[in-house]
Amino acid sequence: MIKNLSNFEKEKISGGINTYKQVLIGPDIAPNFAMRKFIIEPGGFMPLHSNTVEHEQLVLNGKAEVIIGENKYEVKKDDVVYIPAGINHSYKTIGNESFEFICIVPNKEDKIIIAENV
Amino acid sequence: MIKNLSNFEKEKISGGINTYKQVLIGPDIAPNFAMRKFIIEPGGFMPLHSNTVEHEQLVLNGKAEVIIGENKYEVKKDDVVYIPAGINHSYKTIGNESFEFICIVPNKEDKIIIAENV
Repeated sequence: MIKNLSNFEKEKISGGINTYKQVLIGPDIAPNFAMRKFIIEPGGFMPLHSNTVEHEQLVLNGKAEVIIGENKYEVKKDDVVYIPAGINHSYKTIGNESFEFICIVPNKEDKIIIAENV
Repeated sequence: MIKNLSNFEKEKISGGINTYKQVLIGPDIAPNFAMRKFIIEPGGFMPLHSNTVEHEQLVLNGKAEVIIGENKYEVKKDDVVYIPAGINHSYKTIGNESFEFICIVPNKEDKIIIAENV
Protein backbone atom coordinates (compact mmCIF):
# COMPACT_ATOMS: atom_id res chain seq x y z
CA MET A 1 0.00 0.00 0.00
CA ILE A 2 1.19 3.51 -0.88
CA LYS A 3 -1.08 6.43 0.03
CA ASN A 4 -0.35 10.11 0.66
CA LEU A 5 -1.11 11.71 4.04
CA SER A 6 -3.48 14.14 2.31
CA ASN A 7 -5.74 11.26 1.25
CA PHE A 8 -6.69 9.89 4.67
CA GLU A 9 -9.93 10.89 6.37
CA LYS A 10 -9.73 12.96 9.55
CA GLU A 11 -11.79 11.92 12.55
CA LYS A 12 -12.44 14.37 15.39
CA ILE A 13 -11.32 13.05 18.78
CA SER A 14 -14.14 13.54 21.26
CA GLY A 15 -11.84 13.52 24.32
CA GLY A 16 -9.71 16.41 23.00
CA ILE A 17 -10.19 19.99 21.86
CA ASN A 18 -9.42 20.78 18.19
CA THR A 19 -7.84 17.33 17.88
CA TYR A 20 -8.11 15.01 14.86
CA LYS A 21 -6.89 11.50 14.02
CA GLN A 22 -6.02 9.81 10.73
CA VAL A 23 -5.54 6.03 10.75
CA LEU A 24 -2.67 5.52 8.30
CA ILE A 25 -2.11 1.77 8.69
CA GLY A 26 -4.80 0.05 10.74
CA PRO A 27 -5.37 -3.48 12.06
CA ASP A 28 -7.28 -4.24 8.84
CA ILE A 29 -3.97 -3.92 6.94
CA ALA A 30 -1.17 -4.83 9.34
CA PRO A 31 -1.02 -7.67 11.89
CA ASN A 32 0.98 -6.28 14.81
CA PHE A 33 0.73 -2.49 15.23
CA ALA A 34 -1.13 0.54 13.87
CA MET A 35 0.23 3.86 12.58
CA ARG A 36 -1.94 6.90 13.19
CA LYS A 37 -1.43 10.64 12.70
CA PHE A 38 -2.77 13.15 15.21
CA ILE A 39 -3.37 16.82 14.47
CA ILE A 40 -3.93 19.26 17.34
CA GLU A 41 -4.81 22.66 15.93
CA PRO A 42 -3.66 25.94 17.53
CA GLY A 43 -5.44 26.38 20.87
CA GLY A 44 -6.14 22.66 21.05
CA PHE A 45 -5.24 20.05 23.61
CA MET A 46 -5.58 16.46 24.75
CA PRO A 47 -6.22 16.22 28.49
CA LEU A 48 -4.10 14.14 30.86
CA HIS A 49 -4.86 10.47 30.34
CA SER A 50 -3.24 7.06 30.25
CA ASN A 51 -3.53 4.14 27.86
CA THR A 52 -3.01 0.45 28.45
CA VAL A 53 -0.73 0.35 25.39
CA GLU A 54 2.59 2.10 24.77
CA HIS A 55 3.04 4.93 22.21
CA GLU A 56 5.95 5.45 19.81
CA GLN A 57 5.74 8.94 18.34
CA LEU A 58 7.53 11.29 15.95
CA VAL A 59 6.59 14.97 15.73
CA LEU A 60 6.03 16.12 12.13
CA ASN A 61 5.05 19.76 12.72
CA GLY A 62 4.60 22.45 15.36
CA LYS A 63 5.22 22.66 19.07
CA ALA A 64 3.40 21.51 22.18
CA GLU A 65 3.65 21.41 25.93
CA VAL A 66 3.65 17.71 26.70
CA ILE A 67 3.29 16.22 30.16
CA ILE A 68 4.55 12.66 30.64
CA GLY A 69 4.22 11.28 34.14
CA GLU A 70 5.56 13.92 36.53
CA ASN A 71 7.50 15.88 33.87
CA LYS A 72 6.57 18.72 31.51
CA TYR A 73 8.40 19.19 28.19
CA GLU A 74 8.33 21.49 25.18
CA VAL A 75 8.19 19.14 22.22
CA LYS A 76 8.76 20.17 18.58
CA LYS A 77 9.14 18.93 15.00
CA ASP A 78 11.62 16.03 14.68
CA ASP A 79 11.37 15.01 18.33
CA VAL A 80 10.97 11.30 19.02
CA VAL A 81 8.71 10.54 21.99
CA TYR A 82 8.20 7.25 23.81
CA ILE A 83 5.33 6.96 26.27
CA PRO A 84 5.22 3.65 28.17
CA ALA A 85 1.89 1.93 28.79
CA GLY A 86 0.02 3.20 31.84
CA ILE A 87 1.79 6.57 32.14
CA ASN A 88 -0.31 9.74 32.26
CA HIS A 89 0.32 12.15 29.38
CA SER A 90 -1.21 15.28 27.82
CA TYR A 91 -0.62 17.63 24.88
CA LYS A 92 -1.29 21.38 24.51
CA THR A 93 -0.27 23.27 21.38
CA ILE A 94 2.15 26.19 21.61
CA GLY A 95 1.90 29.02 19.06
CA ASN A 96 0.03 29.34 15.79
CA GLU A 97 0.97 26.09 14.07
CA SER A 98 -0.81 22.76 14.27
CA PHE A 99 1.02 20.21 16.40
CA GLU A 100 1.17 17.06 14.28
CA PHE A 101 2.68 13.71 15.13
CA ILE A 102 2.51 10.08 14.23
CA CYS A 103 1.73 7.61 16.98
CA ILE A 104 2.21 3.87 16.66
CA VAL A 105 0.43 1.49 19.02
CA PRO A 106 0.23 -2.31 19.24
CA ASN A 107 -2.93 -3.98 17.92
CA LYS A 108 -4.20 -4.71 21.42
CA GLU A 109 -7.25 -3.58 23.30
CA ASP A 110 -6.59 -0.09 24.66
CA LYS A 111 -8.35 1.21 27.75
CA ILE A 112 -8.11 5.01 27.95
CA ILE A 113 -8.33 6.47 31.44
CA ILE A 114 -8.78 10.24 31.82
CA ALA A 115 -6.80 11.43 34.84
CA GLU A 116 -8.77 13.01 37.70
CA ASN A 117 -8.50 16.65 38.81
CA VAL A 118 -7.67 18.01 35.37
CA MET B 1 11.91 9.50 26.41
CA ILE B 2 12.12 12.62 24.27
CA LYS B 3 15.09 12.96 21.89
CA ASN B 4 15.55 14.93 18.69
CA LEU B 5 16.26 13.19 15.37
CA SER B 6 19.55 15.11 15.14
CA ASN B 7 20.84 13.39 18.29
CA PHE B 8 20.74 9.76 17.15
CA GLU B 9 23.82 8.04 15.77
CA LYS B 10 23.84 7.03 12.10
CA GLU B 11 24.96 3.54 11.15
CA LYS B 12 25.94 2.72 7.56
CA ILE B 13 23.95 -0.15 6.08
CA SER B 14 26.35 -2.61 4.49
CA GLY B 15 23.75 -4.07 2.11
CA GLY B 16 22.94 -0.66 0.56
CA ILE B 17 24.78 2.15 -1.19
CA ASN B 18 24.89 5.55 0.56
CA THR B 19 22.30 4.25 3.05
CA TYR B 20 22.22 4.95 6.79
CA LYS B 21 20.03 3.87 9.72
CA GLN B 22 19.16 5.54 13.01
CA VAL B 23 17.44 3.42 15.68
CA LEU B 24 14.98 5.87 17.25
CA ILE B 25 13.12 3.53 19.62
CA GLY B 26 14.72 0.10 19.91
CA PRO B 27 13.87 -3.18 21.69
CA ASP B 28 15.88 -1.93 24.69
CA ILE B 29 13.20 0.75 25.21
CA ALA B 30 9.92 -0.59 23.83
CA PRO B 31 8.45 -4.08 24.17
CA ASN B 32 6.61 -4.70 20.90
CA PHE B 33 8.05 -2.83 17.90
CA ALA B 34 11.00 -0.64 16.89
CA MET B 35 11.05 2.75 15.14
CA ARG B 36 14.02 3.38 12.85
CA LYS B 37 14.87 6.16 10.40
CA PHE B 38 16.58 5.39 7.09
CA ILE B 39 18.49 7.93 5.01
CA ILE B 40 19.40 7.10 1.41
CA GLU B 41 21.58 9.87 0.00
CA PRO B 42 21.37 11.05 -3.62
CA GLY B 43 22.67 8.29 -5.90
CA GLY B 44 22.03 5.69 -3.21
CA PHE B 45 19.91 2.58 -3.18
CA MET B 46 18.85 -0.50 -1.27
CA PRO B 47 18.79 -3.59 -3.52
CA LEU B 48 15.76 -5.83 -3.93
CA HIS B 49 15.30 -7.92 -0.79
CA SER B 50 12.67 -9.35 1.50
CA ASN B 51 12.30 -9.46 5.27
CA THR B 52 10.49 -11.93 7.47
CA VAL B 53 8.81 -8.99 9.25
CA GLU B 54 6.41 -6.36 7.89
CA HIS B 55 7.35 -2.66 7.48
CA GLU B 56 5.18 0.38 8.27
CA GLN B 57 6.78 3.47 6.75
CA LEU B 58 6.28 7.21 6.38
CA VAL B 59 8.43 9.25 4.00
CA LEU B 60 9.88 12.36 5.65
CA ASN B 61 11.94 13.79 2.78
CA GLY B 62 12.86 13.33 -0.88
CA LYS B 63 11.78 10.96 -3.63
CA ALA B 64 12.62 7.40 -4.60
CA GLU B 65 11.76 4.71 -7.09
CA VAL B 66 10.40 1.93 -4.90
CA ILE B 67 9.70 -1.60 -6.08
CA ILE B 68 7.26 -3.63 -4.01
CA GLY B 69 6.56 -7.14 -5.30
CA GLU B 70 5.86 -6.83 -9.04
CA ASN B 71 5.13 -3.08 -8.97
CA LYS B 72 7.28 0.04 -9.31
CA TYR B 73 6.26 3.34 -7.69
CA GLU B 74 7.56 6.89 -7.34
CA VAL B 75 7.35 7.57 -3.62
CA LYS B 76 7.72 11.01 -2.03
CA LYS B 77 7.50 13.00 1.23
CA ASP B 78 4.27 12.35 3.17
CA ASP B 79 3.60 9.00 1.48
CA VAL B 80 2.61 6.15 3.79
CA VAL B 81 4.01 2.78 2.68
CA TYR B 82 3.09 -0.70 3.94
CA ILE B 83 5.29 -3.63 2.94
CA PRO B 84 3.96 -7.02 4.08
CA ALA B 85 6.38 -9.63 5.43
CA GLY B 86 8.10 -11.72 2.75
CA ILE B 87 7.54 -9.31 -0.18
CA ASN B 88 10.55 -8.21 -2.24
CA HIS B 89 11.21 -4.47 -2.16
CA SER B 90 13.92 -1.97 -3.15
CA TYR B 91 14.61 1.78 -2.97
CA LYS B 92 16.55 4.06 -5.32
CA THR B 93 16.73 7.81 -4.78
CA ILE B 94 15.44 10.21 -7.43
CA GLY B 95 17.02 13.67 -7.75
CA ASN B 96 19.37 15.60 -5.49
CA GLU B 97 17.65 15.22 -2.11
CA SER B 98 18.15 12.48 0.44
CA PHE B 99 15.26 10.03 0.59
CA GLU B 100 14.39 9.73 4.27
CA PHE B 101 11.72 7.61 5.92
CA ILE B 102 10.80 6.04 9.18
CA CYS B 103 10.25 2.30 9.24
CA ILE B 104 8.59 0.45 12.10
CA VAL B 105 9.09 -3.29 12.52
CA PRO B 106 7.96 -5.78 15.15
CA ASN B 107 10.53 -6.90 17.74
CA LYS B 108 10.93 -10.31 16.12
CA GLU B 109 13.88 -12.04 14.50
CA ASP B 110 14.23 -10.70 10.95
CA LYS B 111 15.83 -12.77 8.22
CA ILE B 112 16.85 -10.55 5.28
CA ILE B 113 17.01 -12.27 1.91
CA ILE B 114 18.64 -10.45 -1.03
CA ALA B 115 16.75 -11.27 -4.24
CA GLU B 116 18.68 -13.09 -6.96
CA ASN B 117 19.51 -11.63 -10.37
CA VAL B 118 19.73 -8.02 -9.18
